[in-house]
Amino acid sequence: MSSDATTTAATVPTGPEEATEHPVTPGYAENKAAHLRRLARIEGQVRGIARMVEDDTYCIDVLTQVSAVTRALQAVSLGLLDEHIAHCVVDAARESDEAAAEKVAEVQAAIARLVRS
Amino acid sequence: MSSDATTTAATVPTGPEEATEHPVTPGYAENKAAHLRRLARIEGQVRGIARMVEDDTYCIDVLTQVSAVTRALQAVSLGLLDEHIAHCVVDAARESDEAAAEKVAEVQAAIARLVRS
Amino acid sequence: MSSDATTTAATVPTGPEEATEHPVTPGYAENKAAHLRRLARIEGQVRGIARMVEDDTYCIDVLTQVSAVTRALQAVSLGLLDEHIAHCVVDAARESDEAAAEKVAEVQAAIARLVRS
Amino acid sequence: MSSDATTTAATVPTGPEEATEHPVTPGYAENKAAHLRRLARIEGQVRGIARMVEDDTYCIDVLTQVSAVTRALQAVSLGLLDEHIAHCVVDAARESDEAAAEKVAEVQAAIARLVRS
Repeated sequence: MSSDATTTAATVPTGPEEATEHPVTPGYAENKAAHLRRLARIEGQVRGIARMVEDDTYCIDVLTQVSAVTRALQAVSLGLLDEHIAHCVVDAARESDEAAAEKVAEVQAAIARLVRS
Repeated sequence: MSSDATTTAATVPTGPEEATEHPVTPGYAENKAAHLRRLARIEGQVRGIARMVEDDTYCIDVLTQVSAVTRALQAVSLGLLDEHIAHCVVDAARESDEAAAEKVAEVQAAIARLVRS
Repeated sequence: MSSDATTTAATVPTGPEEATEHPVTPGYAENKAAHLRRLARIEGQVRGIARMVEDDTYCIDVLTQVSAVTRALQAVSLGLLDEHIAHCVVDAARESDEAAAEKVAEVQAAIARLVRS
Repeated sequence: MSSDATTTAATVPTGPEEATEHPVTPGYAENKAAHLRRLARIEGQVRGIARMVEDDTYCIDVLTQVSAVTRALQAVSLGLLDEHIAHCVVDAARESDEAAAEKVAEVQAAIARLVRS
């Protein structure tokens, strides 16, 4: 369902939360295909959990699957973070003190969200 | 090998991992619709993350979304666990010491998986 | 600062947060000695981390130790929770619906705090 | 205070796990005093939990305190990590590609341990 306005939203893509102004290729560009495969698999797993609930599967078995998907999402996060530090943070460090300070603050906030999520 | 009784096991087979023998309504039966809505929303969010990666969205913005989905999945887990304890564990406690011990061990393993995921 | 007021702190310091009225033996009574040994070890590990910082140990090595202590604390939590469910929740389930509901709500809040900590 | 035998331990300092060869001032040098205060407070909190167990404090109240200490330790980790990235990783990025790659791999492993702990 969800008639989904996003497909028609040709112009203003926006990011969620804050649409930071960032140019060009993200740090994960090289592994984009791998990330997309992982996310497609996770999407399928979430659909599988819904099917388990639909079928009245035993709670503990559903929980086991939810934990597996949570771990898979964390692996995605750790991968993105790794590439972000290796590319964006390293590049910023070489650019200037200000650029470095900005990227460090930003990545730190992302790590804190990840640790607490 | 393994003459495998599961294949003969009547009709609707298996959950994932271990197909525990569990009757009838799971602990989350009352809130089934709410769980399904949450899971449908999470599935959409995962698809949204894939779209962000496809569009080369800035790493940190992708990470923010992944953390949001991870938290949403944890909320699903906590909800399922709550209902499981309130129904299945409480019922087992009233049934017998053996039933209680079995359910307690099982829920404890699920909590450990959740905490570590 | 911190001239260590605790030693002078007159009387019985109470428990932290909320001193809930609960009678008798806690669920962990049987394994009390084991919990105390674990906590003594954790206390020593925290002191060891302070010594590492004092000695200007490399950040990553300090972080490794902090993660080890965090995991050790989680193991304590999981152990306490296990015994709490096996004893207090099971007993409450056998006592009455009201007692069960109260204990279930309480343990659920504790699990949520644990998952999010 | 802290008469502390470590000061006399002129010879064998060792780090835990792996005593990586790292020079001079760690990234957290500037906030060393603040980290030591935090760790002293955490040590006191762990001792407080042991006292609660000794006094047969209700399980849930003990659990609440353990969660608080776990969060305090995570805050220490996040602080150390922040300073490590701001100093060590940024410096390595400016030094060479090899130095950067080494530090990035190392910090990534530390983040993964933190997320999973």
